[in-house]
Amino acid sequence: MNLSQVGEFGLINLLNKKMIHSPAGVIAGIGDDAAVLQCPGDCWQLFTTDMMVEGIHFRLDWSAYFDVGYKALAVNISDIAAMGGRPSHGVVSIAIPGHTRVEDVAELYRGLKEIAGKHKVNLVGGDTVKSPGPLVVNIALLGEVTAGRAVFRSGARPGDTIYTTGNLGTAAAGLYLLSQNGVCPPELRDRVIRAHLRPEPRVSEGILLGSLEGVAALDDNSDGLAAELREICRASSVGCLVWEKALPVLPGVRQLASQAGTGVLDWVMNGGEDYELLFTLRPDRRKPVEEALHEAGIPFTAIGVVVPEPEGLSVERCDGTREIIAMQGYNHFAE
Amino acid sequence: MNLSQVGEFGLINLLNKKMIHSPAGVIAGIGDDAAVLQCPGDCWQLFTTDMMVEGIHFRLDWSAYFDVGYKALAVNISDIAAMGGRPSHGVVSIAIPGHTRVEDVAELYRGLKEIAGKHKVNLVGGDTVKSPGPLVVNIALLGEVTAGRAVFRSGARPGDTIYTTGNLGTAAAGLYLLSQNGVCPPELRDRVIRAHLRPEPRVSEGILLGSLEGVAALDDNSDGLAAELREICRASSVGCLVWEKALPVLPGVRQLASQAGTGVLDWVMNGGEDYELLFTLRPDRRKPVEEALHEAGIPFTAIGVVVPEPEGLSVERCDGTREIIAMQGYNHFAE
Repeated sequence: MNLSQVGEFGLINLLNKKMIHSPAGVIAGIGDDAAVLQCPGDCWQLFTTDMMVEGIHFRLDWSAYFDVGYKALAVNISDIAAMGGRPSHGVVSIAIPGHTRVEDVAELYRGLKEIAGKHKVNLVGGDTVKSPGPLVVNIALLGEVTAGRAVFRSGARPGDTIYTTGNLGTAAAGLYLLSQNGVCPPELRDRVIRAHLRPEPRVSEGILLGSLEGVAALDDNSDGLAAELREICRASSVGCLVWEKALPVLPGVRQLASQAGTGVLDWVMNGGEDYELLFTLRPDRRKPVEEALHEAGIPFTAIGVVVPEPEGLSVERCDGTREIIAMQGYNHFAE
Repeated sequence: MNLSQVGEFGLINLLNKKMIHSPAGVIAGIGDDAAVLQCPGDCWQLFTTDMMVEGIHFRLDWSAYFDVGYKALAVNISDIAAMGGRPSHGVVSIAIPGHTRVEDVAELYRGLKEIAGKHKVNLVGGDTVKSPGPLVVNIALLGEVTAGRAVFRSGARPGDTIYTTGNLGTAAAGLYLLSQNGVCPPELRDRVIRAHLRPEPRVSEGILLGSLEGVAALDDNSDGLAAELREICRASSVGCLVWEKALPVLPGVRQLASQAGTGVLDWVMNGGEDYELLFTLRPDRRKPVEEALHEAGIPFTAIGVVVPEPEGLSVERCDGTREIIAMQGYNHFAE
């Protein structure tokens, strides 16, 4: 049996077994956006890592080296934000092909430093090695969260409303324009391509959500709405119903999806990389939390409802029909 | 200019500039075996990362997948040991070629878990991605050290005695036997190959050294004695004189080096990967520290003396001559 027959979930299961040798220090290990560690002095610490590989996660004919550095740290910061935390310290490993120009490596670091500066992340160490193949960037990132206030994927209950920050499908539109010759107004083009190349993690939004009573489950949208809702379903033992007509999509992105010959629902569900925050909210807490988000100027939309586990993950289409989303599998949503 | 003209030190300099945005939390950033972070509750935390790339750091015809996992964590644990700390929590990223068998990935994890169990390291997260090229394993590791007791590379002063734990050149002998058809008794063969494939980090030794007054500088021997002494020279603004005749080398390793047509001094100086601890000791503290090490059953040898910076890094050969070791460059010691 080879890896293509197992997929990442099989590997996570392999990893999960007997990996904790001193349980006292671990509040939550593998299975959420970041691990939660118990530090001395009743403080909680978050710990996450993400690896980006040339040819798999990025292409150097689409991404500048600056973008590669920026995004490598952005996606890790987003994992910390998805727990309600604030990023603090990171270490950076880079495997660099021998033919790479020093100027390009400097640009990659400049991208790293740019977003590190925005979020006051200290880059405190690293490893620089030679690669006989692709450029590989790995970042491991620590974060802080008030003890007891980390928000897990496992807190959703039937009856919760499902929300997302910002818009969905934007990064997928950017990837489409980079890979195809789509026609698009320049301003929208810049916006969606930037969403793909330089995602902006929702750190202050995550911290606010973590501080508000009633925010029950939290996740960042890295792998598409379908994949992230599946994570919440699994971790919380619930189902989710998404309302297609409620999904927040930029008008131009809807047009680009038609141009691309795919439905925008496919981009929202399976495109991923929007790095918006997805959260569920207890029904009796909708009003105060919505008010707090409005007051903070955070864009958000209610996009569905948590349902009992046997109902599974489904979407109510604009025509009123309900469609089950497979717990595995993609491209079910082409219009 | 490309990377081959710069080397890792040039890159570390690139990284070093303006990477710390919240200095309050960082006791020591880039430039030692691990970063030292200030946590709430007056506790110090260590943070390090190391990346291993197939074809650069290991070959799958020499290393079993188990060994790859074992060594990837071992070298990170050694970085924590080299600060006088105890490893606590790690995250593991793996880029896996698509043709890899699941059984092989399971073996890699088994190696990881084996050494994690020995040192009570919790593996709390990770990222598993596809590689279009080599197998890449990155680990980021946290450690704990008593506040104020981390031992840096920068503490050496002229007059300190230089010590190493264990034997040197052993891993280089293992690499020689793996890459050439050397003749060697089976017991020695197993021992030196094991030293190369599955190094044993000196954690309890590092913790003891960190607790003893007079231990002034500490480093792990990952890149060879010459490279590690250079690090101590740079960080402490000193020189070092090594006594060739004092260097602890297994008798069989000396013979293998002759057989290989190189001097054993070359293996000791430039072979690396012994993961022994290298430390310097104030002259008036030699007796109590040596007694404490004897009592703990830790093998150690005095191998030289710290000298003023202008004297540079040199070795006193067995014939009494003194040879300068270049601050860059290798293979100066072929006999």
